Amino acid sequence: MIIFFAGEIQDNRALLLGDEARHCSKVLRKRVGDNVMFTDGKGFFYKGQIVNADKNKCEISILEKEKAEELPYKLSIAISPVKNPARFEWFVEKAVEIGIDSIIPLICKRTEKKNIKTARIENIIISASKQSLKAKFPVLKQPVAFNDFLESINPRNTFLAHLDKDAVYLGKIASHGDEIVLLIGPEGDFTTEEISKALGIGIRTVTLGSTRLRTETAGVVVCQLINTVYEMEK
Amino acid sequence: MIIFFAGEIQDNRALLLGDEARHCSKVLRKRVGDNVMFTDGKGFFYKGQIVNADKNKCEISILEKEKAEELPYKLSIAISPVKNPARFEWFVEKAVEIGIDSIIPLICKRTEKKNIKTARIENIIISASKQSLKAKFPVLKQPVAFNDFLESINPRNTFLAHLDKDAVYLGKIASHGDEIVLLIGPEGDFTTEEISKALGIGIRTVTLGSTRLRTETAGVVVCQLINTVYEMEK
Repeated sequence: MIIFFAGEIQDNRALLLGDEARHCSKVLRKRVGDNVMFTDGKGFFYKGQIVNADKNKCEISILEKEKAEELPYKLSIAISPVKNPARFEWFVEKAVEIGIDSIIPLICKRTEKKNIKTARIENIIISASKQSLKAKFPVLKQPVAFNDFLESINPRNTFLAHLDKDAVYLGKIASHGDEIVLLIGPEGDFTTEEISKALGIGIRTVTLGSTRLRTETAGVVVCQLINTVYEMEK
Repeated sequence: MIIFFAGEIQDNRALLLGDEARHCSKVLRKRVGDNVMFTDGKGFFYKGQIVNADKNKCEISILEKEKAEELPYKLSIAISPVKNPARFEWFVEKAVEIGIDSIIPLICKRTEKKNIKTARIENIIISASKQSLKAKFPVLKQPVAFNDFLESINPRNTFLAHLDKDAVYLGKIASHGDEIVLLIGPEGDFTTEEISKALGIGIRTVTLGSTRLRTETAGVVVCQLINTVYEMEK
């Protein structure tokens, strides 16, 4: 099943733009009168009929609209970018496939690469969402400094991932909150100052198991860990 | 902490060979008399002292030997190679980091790429094991045809991952066996004949959740799902 992303929807008309239009009319050779499935990226699936198949802009008349099933939890991951951008992009793709609400590039003391390619990552989010049939696209936030981010969160449902034998396993506390924010540090980990600062405002440290994980692996592990906890409780 | 891999160990002498020797003597400039940590890849960590630091062969005198903690479960994943080798290699790296015992490239009817780069993947296994401080390196088996593989397994603890609303969630049955074998199909999924054949010999289908996953994502999801189930039971 192929799902397109309609960048514009008004009344009962939807538009596929740019790559989406090209993919529809040039690659898949859809023509006027053909039916297609698409999403608005905001939580709805649509069925429609093509009324204009241009390679830059496909116009669709909406036939049906359906609210998609949502994730039974709300997960945000604030994660340090890593040196190799492909590894960060890989994290984004897999997090989207497994299930996540928002991704916040977190600039920590030891973050070596402080910028990300926003447009490229947004395209990965769209394509991974379509691939895994998700109607609600996760949000990519602007990169934010560790200290600034701490001011924006509720410490009650925010956890800092840390390989610490005394910390509790994320899965053991995750099930009690309906919204979860995870902080994942850079290669070289958070500094002790950062950890103290987080603990000081009431954020708890959690472990993701007993193994040492790369930053981007920790991100994917969090997504699947939370997903498993909820599936097991069903 | 840096862990080397000693390709040869005899009595109280260990040898770092090839890349390991070069990394030790050239990159990290370790010298005779320096202490190093290493593993045999078979479940033990060692501490030793360098007695000969050649760029092709580092000789180490063993000071201490310690059995590493093992995974509390045994997980094998038989997974179809995918078109893009980087995606398969990514699965291997992440599976090793999270925890797995053996990886079997499974050649299914719809597998497009029927070969893998064995030496390259074995290097990824060594490097991901060292990175995540694993003393027991997972085993990469030879690619095997779907039908042949079915003859080699115990159907009681073998599961076929399938996005099927009636199938049970893997996590709900995984906790009852001490050894788990998961079959993961190619892009385009198993054929109905393959599924019937598996069901016919008593293999059960399982879901990995409600989302559609790429082949290589499904592989990583299985590793973390099983890991979470065991961590939650601790």
